[in-house]
Amino acid sequence: MKIYKKAVLPAGFTANGVACGIKKSGKLDLALFVSDIPAKAACKFTTNKLPAAPIIINKKYLKKNKAFRAIIANSGNANAFRGEAGLTDARKMSSSAAKILNIREESVLVASTGIIAKKLPVEKIEDALPALVKGLSKQAIDKAKRAILTTDKFSKELTARVNISGKPVTICAVAKGAGMIAPDMATMLCFILTDANITQGALDFALTDAVNNSFNLITVDGCMSTSDSVMLFANGQAKNKLIDIDEYFDGFYKALNTVCFELAKMVVYDGEGATKFIRIEVKEAKNYTEARKTALGIANSNLFKTAMYASSPNVMGRIIASVGSAGIDLKEKDLKIKFSDLKKRNIEVTVSLARGKSEAVIYTSDLSCEYVKINAEYN
Amino acid sequence: MKIYKKAVLPAGFTANGVACGIKKSGKLDLALFVSDIPAKAACKFTTNKLPAAPIIINKKYLKKNKAFRAIIANSGNANAFRGEAGLTDARKMSSSAAKILNIREESVLVASTGIIAKKLPVEKIEDALPALVKGLSKQAIDKAKRAILTTDKFSKELTARVNISGKPVTICAVAKGAGMIAPDMATMLCFILTDANITQGALDFALTDAVNNSFNLITVDGCMSTSDSVMLFANGQAKNKLIDIDEYFDGFYKALNTVCFELAKMVVYDGEGATKFIRIEVKEAKNYTEARKTALGIANSNLFKTAMYASSPNVMGRIIASVGSAGIDLKEKDLKIKFSDLKKRNIEVTVSLARGKSEAVIYTSDLSCEYVKINAEYN
Repeated sequence: MKIYKKAVLPAGFTANGVACGIKKSGKLDLALFVSDIPAKAACKFTTNKLPAAPIIINKKYLKKNKAFRAIIANSGNANAFRGEAGLTDARKMSSSAAKILNIREESVLVASTGIIAKKLPVEKIEDALPALVKGLSKQAIDKAKRAILTTDKFSKELTARVNISGKPVTICAVAKGAGMIAPDMATMLCFILTDANITQGALDFALTDAVNNSFNLITVDGCMSTSDSVMLFANGQAKNKLIDIDEYFDGFYKALNTVCFELAKMVVYDGEGATKFIRIEVKEAKNYTEARKTALGIANSNLFKTAMYASSPNVMGRIIASVGSAGIDLKEKDLKIKFSDLKKRNIEVTVSLARGKSEAVIYTSDLSCEYVKINAEYN
Repeated sequence: MKIYKKAVLPAGFTANGVACGIKKSGKLDLALFVSDIPAKAACKFTTNKLPAAPIIINKKYLKKNKAFRAIIANSGNANAFRGEAGLTDARKMSSSAAKILNIREESVLVASTGIIAKKLPVEKIEDALPALVKGLSKQAIDKAKRAILTTDKFSKELTARVNISGKPVTICAVAKGAGMIAPDMATMLCFILTDANITQGALDFALTDAVNNSFNLITVDGCMSTSDSVMLFANGQAKNKLIDIDEYFDGFYKALNTVCFELAKMVVYDGEGATKFIRIEVKEAKNYTEARKTALGIANSNLFKTAMYASSPNVMGRIIASVGSAGIDLKEKDLKIKFSDLKKRNIEVTVSLARGKSEAVIYTSDLSCEYVKINAEYN
């Protein structure tokens, strides 16, 4: 497997990004990803009970349709909590894009990220569609990847190439992150395009595991978004022998896991205001649930996060207070806490509970004044 | 009932505070509260599974003893997560104070607040005891109340006077708060002294309710402390007719509830870095549990708190995201959110779920850069 720290579109995919005017800054805010031929899709959406309109629409499309051609995504407005109007606008995004691309509405998935409960200027999106479609190309993935960002400081992108049955298969992913990052799902938006020839079952299986081992292990602020979506398209253009859960599966599975894991880490690195990248491992727990709960509790503790920001040895007491409030029975003498050099950017925290053999890892960032400023000013 | 916004000691109580040298700043850090005669005690402690040493010791004393004379409390060091050494030091605090006061060790309760997992300079406390005891007086409550503070900007104090069976009964309380404030218990330390003549059963009953209706309704940072303690002494010196759960109970019950509620609100007002005082009411929930869970979820959302800090209308979307992540089934159209003028210091947020008739209220503060600075620098 080869990894490229850049988005390189697989065979049969094009993309583009434009500024349609949703963001007042004039930055890119509308992206389009297109497969030349119908692709299989696997998707994971936020478990938030008040999901944004695009998620509701996508779920409908995914129910009645098995072949997809495009993803249209805007940033600057989440199209969430807008009732019927939101659903109408999400459907307009897909139907208008479908019309210009001359494909079926149900084959265009939709994503929106940004401010919640604000009218979406959908006419701006519709007006920008001709130029967006006209500019579709391999190279314009560089615009698409920027058009999905909000408070992100850098674009999250990665490409993996793996040989399957003698053919090079490419998996390319771009994501946005920064804030409102908590499992499940902690990604906001991630679009993964692959030319792999793969069965629907194998695709779904691989994505479920890849997301559980990546985006569901990260938290920036413990706040779950209404828009979180991971969408994976596979168009088969690599012409490899059809991957099922068989001897061809492993290579694809590992590559997809790597892509998601690396992107998830990039989301934490670019967490709003983040100055630290922190790996928290809880060991010797009775089961995975309590290991994960304890690790997440530490990761989401503001007192832990501010101590990390300050590289303060006082972090010890804050880990103890957090572990003690996780609701699991512990003996003080059994709890062992270790951490690496607090002055560095990358920090490892290890907590041993002496209760069993299970473990869990969570990745998180610190809490800085910058986080407060970003989120106080974001509007 | 009369309320005085100042600590005024009831009959038969004295107090004092000195600087024994735990705080490097030279500020007051050791307090003593004494009842002239044995008093009944009711206490509530943190549910943290890794409680500080004083809590473990107090629980032992409360088990084998029914009459108490004093509370010794230090700030600047929590005497937590120190194993046997911590227990030895906590016991030394009570036994040394008991010796000088010429009373039994088990009649002196102990409290410590400050940094966790750091050696307590117990010899400094012992050296300061003679002066601490010598200075005991009614007036020196003004020193005692300051000696329990850490990052607090002002002392939390209140006195209620209520007439019971023709006698004036006084309830005086002092508390520290500021950070690591989350139910249950969200107080850090609160000492309540009353001259009421009351049965143990009535005292316990009244304190349980008063704490549930006050300190368990507030959160500053969602972080549960290892040291939270509410201690209530009743010495009977008001000479009122013995209060049981009878016609004399109501007056005492209301006064104690008021004292705890007002102090809890002061703790939120003085939350670390707080610029807002926010009341969150969740209505029309199926049951109290889901109402409380939803309200706490909002109160502990960093995105909600930073939007509050900025008086940003964007807070709407953040409340929606938080409510949606509370795990309860909701219809978007049923959710109603209202908030008062965001520019003011006191803000009311009302969330209606249209699921039932239950409601819950939580009080919280906003999240400012100042919070990050205080907790990054605290050491």
